[in-house]
Amino acid sequence: MSDSTHPYAGDPVFDLHVGGKMEVAASVPLAGRAELSMAYTPGVARVCTAIAEDATLSHHYTWVPNTVAVVTDGTAVLGLGDIGPSAAMPVMEGKAILFKQFGGVDGIPICLDTTDVDEIVETVVRMAPSFGGINLEDISAPRCFEIEERLKERLDIPVFHDDQHGTAVVTLAALWNALRLTGRTVESTRVVISGAGAAGVAIAKILVEAGVKDLCVVDRKGIVSSEREDLTPVKRRLAELTADRNGRAGSLAEALRDADVYVGVSGGTVPEELVATMAPESIVFAMANPDPEIHPDVAHRYARVVATGRSDFPNQINNVLAFPGIFRGAFDARATAITERMKLAAAEALAELVGDELSADMVIPSPFDPRVGPAVAAAVAEAAREDGVARA
Amino acid sequence: MSDSTHPYAGDPVFDLHVGGKMEVAASVPLAGRAELSMAYTPGVARVCTAIAEDATLSHHYTWVPNTVAVVTDGTAVLGLGDIGPSAAMPVMEGKAILFKQFGGVDGIPICLDTTDVDEIVETVVRMAPSFGGINLEDISAPRCFEIEERLKERLDIPVFHDDQHGTAVVTLAALWNALRLTGRTVESTRVVISGAGAAGVAIAKILVEAGVKDLCVVDRKGIVSSEREDLTPVKRRLAELTADRNGRAGSLAEALRDADVYVGVSGGTVPEELVATMAPESIVFAMANPDPEIHPDVAHRYARVVATGRSDFPNQINNVLAFPGIFRGAFDARATAITERMKLAAAEALAELVGDELSADMVIPSPFDPRVGPAVAAAVAEAAREDGVARA
Repeated sequence: MSDSTHPYAGDPVFDLHVGGKMEVAASVPLAGRAELSMAYTPGVARVCTAIAEDATLSHHYTWVPNTVAVVTDGTAVLGLGDIGPSAAMPVMEGKAILFKQFGGVDGIPICLDTTDVDEIVETVVRMAPSFGGINLEDISAPRCFEIEERLKERLDIPVFHDDQHGTAVVTLAALWNALRLTGRTVESTRVVISGAGAAGVAIAKILVEAGVKDLCVVDRKGIVSSEREDLTPVKRRLAELTADRNGRAGSLAEALRDADVYVGVSGGTVPEELVATMAPESIVFAMANPDPEIHPDVAHRYARVVATGRSDFPNQINNVLAFPGIFRGAFDARATAITERMKLAAAEALAELVGDELSADMVIPSPFDPRVGPAVAAAVAEAAREDGVARA
Repeated sequence: MSDSTHPYAGDPVFDLHVGGKMEVAASVPLAGRAELSMAYTPGVARVCTAIAEDATLSHHYTWVPNTVAVVTDGTAVLGLGDIGPSAAMPVMEGKAILFKQFGGVDGIPICLDTTDVDEIVETVVRMAPSFGGINLEDISAPRCFEIEERLKERLDIPVFHDDQHGTAVVTLAALWNALRLTGRTVESTRVVISGAGAAGVAIAKILVEAGVKDLCVVDRKGIVSSEREDLTPVKRRLAELTADRNGRAGSLAEALRDADVYVGVSGGTVPEELVATMAPESIVFAMANPDPEIHPDVAHRYARVVATGRSDFPNQINNVLAFPGIFRGAFDARATAITERMKLAAAEALAELVGDELSADMVIPSPFDPRVGPAVAAAVAEAAREDGVARA
């Protein structure tokens, strides 16, 4: 803050980051004694006393119900891997301001100096009275699964691992529209997910919930199948959820042959000759950043619909379409959790926004479509009420 | 946030608190794809990579060096006592926005759902990469002393318990001016502190550092003296620091007889007949809120200088005079700690601001004097450099 020069001066991205990307601001006036005596002592004591007598009043009289802690341990930051909590901060700040910009939610970046599951869980539980929700971010698999599950058990506020569920929601929305465009039904579509990390596991789960029956997940060693001896507990459950029902095993090549849909969340590369073996009018979501598993130019030689994670190609599958609206909706309903129904409702709302504009280059709305946040929020809040987790 | 009515609607203080008193805001533009690709992916990845390679760059490219966690466990909130973390939030929000208003520091309220010393220390240490400093707040004695000491040992960022040191700094500043006005020297002045909690202990320490030689602290049972068998370890050290050097023991009445200065941070009441036994031209700082230990009207019958913690009497001894500037100065110097010299420098800067305006009704500046924050910050930053704890 105090330095006028910095090591990467002149680089626009670094120049933008000088001093960070966010700040806190008072939302009440503080210019004189009278105002100070209301916002701070002695007036504030009456508000504290009222909350001490009736805890639910904190929903009215504090910023807590509109805040989300954006929590990471820095172990799986973007495609950079384990870069630690301090180096993760620019991403967490970015996430926090996206929460505000697209959902009106106050995000607070919390970068933790521990990678121990027990310690992360205990730390978040202890700081939980400060926040209306917990957004887990860039925590490596498989620890992220256990951390999320344990926090959901311990807390009565929304806990959401965006790398899993945000990605899954947007993927499902895009897939529904791609299926509609290509005249497929969910039940008859054959899907291959490449990548069995946080995103791959969550996408597999939401697709099964959405009715996909023919689904397999491929990791570096091939199809995640119960025949394999090397599976972690998470992958074993994934095998039971997916490949087993099709009895399929083997390599990515075997998985892709005649597949309708490829969903890449792996960061690897798929050879063109494999893409060529997919079903006609196929659907390719090559979501690795910055390099898609299949370049869109190549994919388009075979596929009808191509989506990526990048903003410079059509059909950007970007989590920012989901997380701000999901938390906005959960907060509007004062939800105690984010349920499966709320995630599906978010995906439906996103898919419906495309409406008549549906085309091969438009299976998902733009992140800058101003309808996105409110539509997702409304659908999520309604689903929370239907699910009985809403308090408002 | 979503409710248009609330239980205390119509009460101006409660109306002001609806939705809380603060928010986060982006300090960079986010309106389009180009801006998103700089503040978030893919651009942000380069900033993360740079920090991963050189951790000191987080000072340039994140908001961390300008943030302070305002941490409480809700056990000693204002005069309300142990009201818990959720009910403490309005005070922490108030503190956070005072940090911003008077110091340009981004304060983040963190209310912890534990009162265990080990757990509080571990929790704060784990979240420390997220913050440039830690301000402990409204944590009950004697736990607050151990928590502060252990955090100072574990962290290389400023850790400051405002109830102790903020109060001590402002008290010392006011005392210096009161002594100047009444023609006393620090060394010859006899001081009685009523209250051996966080504030009383810290005031005793800073007065000794400032050269006060005749000092005793009184708690509910009388003078804190080594003759007593009931002393906690903290009070035993306090007895060694203060009363022992004067060999004084007994009740408040014995302490006050011929005393030059009374400093009340106890919340009790001092009978008028005891005030009458103080030395001529005495100095009374009755700082309990909302009810001073001695009402100013009563005190003025005997004392030359009277100060309170209230804004509706002259000479308000208010921490807001200290903590925003102290953290601003520590951050400007990128200090690794807040040292005794930095606190003394803050008190000197505050005292000097009164200058020629010195009178019985003006021994300390107004919190709304715009010179206060910058003057304290400059003095603190300079002291940090003199003490060798500055990194800038």
